[in-house]
Amino acid sequence: MTLVSFAHPTISKIGDKHWFHEINDSFPGQSFGLEVVRILHHSQSAFQDILVFESATFGNVLVLNGIVQCTEKDEFAYQELITHVPVMCHEKPAKVLVIGGGDCGVVRELVKHLEDGVEEIVMVEIDRAVIDLSIKYLPNMAKFHNHPKVKIVIEDGFKFLERLSSLEDSGKYDVIITDSSDPEGPAQEFFDTGYYGLLKNALKPDGIVAMQSSENIWLNLPYLCDLLNKTSQVFSNVEYCQCYMPSYTSGQLGLVIASPAKSRDLKNPVKNFDDRKDLFKYYNSKVHEASFVLPTWAANALEKRTT
Amino acid sequence: MTLVSFAHPTISKIGDKHWFHEINDSFPGQSFGLEVVRILHHSQSAFQDILVFESATFGNVLVLNGIVQCTEKDEFAYQELITHVPVMCHEKPAKVLVIGGGDCGVVRELVKHLEDGVEEIVMVEIDRAVIDLSIKYLPNMAKFHNHPKVKIVIEDGFKFLERLSSLEDSGKYDVIITDSSDPEGPAQEFFDTGYYGLLKNALKPDGIVAMQSSENIWLNLPYLCDLLNKTSQVFSNVEYCQCYMPSYTSGQLGLVIASPAKSRDLKNPVKNFDDRKDLFKYYNSKVHEASFVLPTWAANALEKRTT
Repeated sequence: MTLVSFAHPTISKIGDKHWFHEINDSFPGQSFGLEVVRILHHSQSAFQDILVFESATFGNVLVLNGIVQCTEKDEFAYQELITHVPVMCHEKPAKVLVIGGGDCGVVRELVKHLEDGVEEIVMVEIDRAVIDLSIKYLPNMAKFHNHPKVKIVIEDGFKFLERLSSLEDSGKYDVIITDSSDPEGPAQEFFDTGYYGLLKNALKPDGIVAMQSSENIWLNLPYLCDLLNKTSQVFSNVEYCQCYMPSYTSGQLGLVIASPAKSRDLKNPVKNFDDRKDLFKYYNSKVHEASFVLPTWAANALEKRTT
Repeated sequence: MTLVSFAHPTISKIGDKHWFHEINDSFPGQSFGLEVVRILHHSQSAFQDILVFESATFGNVLVLNGIVQCTEKDEFAYQELITHVPVMCHEKPAKVLVIGGGDCGVVRELVKHLEDGVEEIVMVEIDRAVIDLSIKYLPNMAKFHNHPKVKIVIEDGFKFLERLSSLEDSGKYDVIITDSSDPEGPAQEFFDTGYYGLLKNALKPDGIVAMQSSENIWLNLPYLCDLLNKTSQVFSNVEYCQCYMPSYTSGQLGLVIASPAKSRDLKNPVKNFDDRKDLFKYYNSKVHEASFVLPTWAANALEKRTT
């Protein structure tokens, strides 16, 4: 008989089963739980605690510093929204930069656009271990990690952007996607105006950025208002959208979408691929528009912050 | 020192805190958890296990047979969607029937429409204990339980509808809302064609019904297709919508909206109260429309079932 270890601070036994519980000060008093079949990997990388486990009903799960990054069951919702909202709002998103995104899910979605304008995909991830583990345990997410049009740079995204400060406009990016973990651990610097300034500097004047918002409207609306205010100090055009995401806190993911170009319509795509069957599993043009529709109380709060 | 009891099968200790975990065969392998401050009530009524606890961050929580029915933090999303979607699609929803809804949250929302067409509100709840406990522990939800325009009947909703079979058209309802628990325990009969036939019989030919769907698109899409097929055997006009609901499985609530009148537009309200500030916290006309927009894979699956 082989003894299977469930030793991780996030895993406890309830009845005769082992459960992962996402308990964190960032979302006090609530916790999403998944039944664990077995731990596939646990290590402390140079940057963070990395846990990969096989769940009973959500497929394999990647956890960084105790927080779910993706599950095989629902990852497509996040990956599709954060990728296709900015890309589908841009007429010709030739050069796309991904900061973070070590599971390579955003890269997978970007590869779908190689026939309609995307020419260059650069991904800058600080932690090589996340990429390697995703290739091994999340193969459907990481399947294009070695695609010829994809360039992966192992570096701190903040430092990578600093090095771009001398870029000519022609070298700048059309779309930049920040697919980071929450602002605890290595992603902390991605949630402040210094970072937004670097993003703007690396972006063409009509470019678009998409960033995961960490908190959501139910969890911490004042934080979200603050985050949007910070973004608005750098970008003249700032919007917020969300999608359903069962394995994330409160069952949703929030995104900040922004552009230096005030006239850009971020809430409506300029392209429509709804007739290209099986291209997207979550995204379509109606989903794009609906993702910007917020419940009254949250819409009012986010609107007031701009007045 | 007073010893506080946390004795309930759904509550366990993790670290130095007590957590409620919603573990159920209906949503295997996943579990929403809330930190428990104290149990306010626990009893076995004639119909179900009733638990009310004070949570650390979601206010007071009502749990029936181990499943969260409502929390003070997010109940408004559910109550508003299930009420205002059918009512706002009806030109004059004079007579409204609520089956279930013992927390009286739907009744609270219906009272908001007394100035724009609602004349009579009847609520049929099988378990008086749920009403009494809601009055005590969820006072903001139950605040209109004794409103002069509200009639509460303590009876099995199924039997109540059977008794209506001899109604003249003029006595029938314009809107019927089934605000039931999931199909385990006393609400089981609310998820079959026999019940839908009774609903149709009690509804005016141009009336509208709204029913919580129990499962959602992430959890059990084949079940949902089956549920919509069953509903379509009785109603010629059937739609599905959803809202964000952090304390429900997968972070969302699904609703079946149906009418015997094929020409009725259920996806767009016929009235617009967006300028009546503070009337609704979740609902507005854009939320109404957006709630019917489903992710591509789910929209395709639900569409195919009808062909």
